[in-house]
Amino acid sequence: MKLRIFVTLKPGVLDPQGRAIHHALGSLGFEGVDDVRAGKMFELEVADTTTDEAIDGMCRQLLANTVIENFRVERA
Amino acid sequence: MKLRIFVTLKPGVLDPQGRAIHHALGSLGFEGVDDVRAGKMFELEVADTTTDEAIDGMCRQLLANTVIENFRVERA
Repeated sequence: MKLRIFVTLKPGVLDPQGRAIHHALGSLGFEGVDDVRAGKMFELEVADTTTDEAIDGMCRQLLANTVIENFRVERA
Repeated sequence: MKLRIFVTLKPGVLDPQGRAIHHALGSLGFEGVDDVRAGKMFELEVADTTTDEAIDGMCRQLLANTVIENFRVERA
C-alpha cells in the first residue's frame, strides 16, 4: 500500500524557507507571487495490514513535529 | 490562485533521507514499512494572471533541481 504524507507548518508559524524562496523568486524576475510556504512530502510503501493507528504513530513520532507542524495522510 | 508544487527525487537517485527515515521507523518498532522516499512540497499563492510558462520557470530555475528531481504542479 502506497501512502503520501504531507507535512506543513501550522498557520502562524514563521516560515523562513518560504520567505527566502519568495524573495528569490522576486529576484529572478517572477512577478505576482504573493506567498510561499515550504513543506515536506513522504512517500511510504507499507504492508496492506498496516493500521491507521500505526501510520498515525509514524507521523507523530517521527515524520512531523506536531508542536509546529500539521500532517495529512493520503492513500495513493 | 493557490498552487501546490511537489518535488521528488527521480527514480534511481539515492535517497539518504528516505533511507534514514526508513531505518528510524524500524528502530521505533514500526513494522511492515517497505520503502520511504522523502520529497518537498511548496504552496504558492500567485496572481490569477500567472502563466503556466512562468510557473514552469519557477520550478526549473529555483524549486527543483531538474538533474535529479521531478516536479509536479497542482492547482489547489
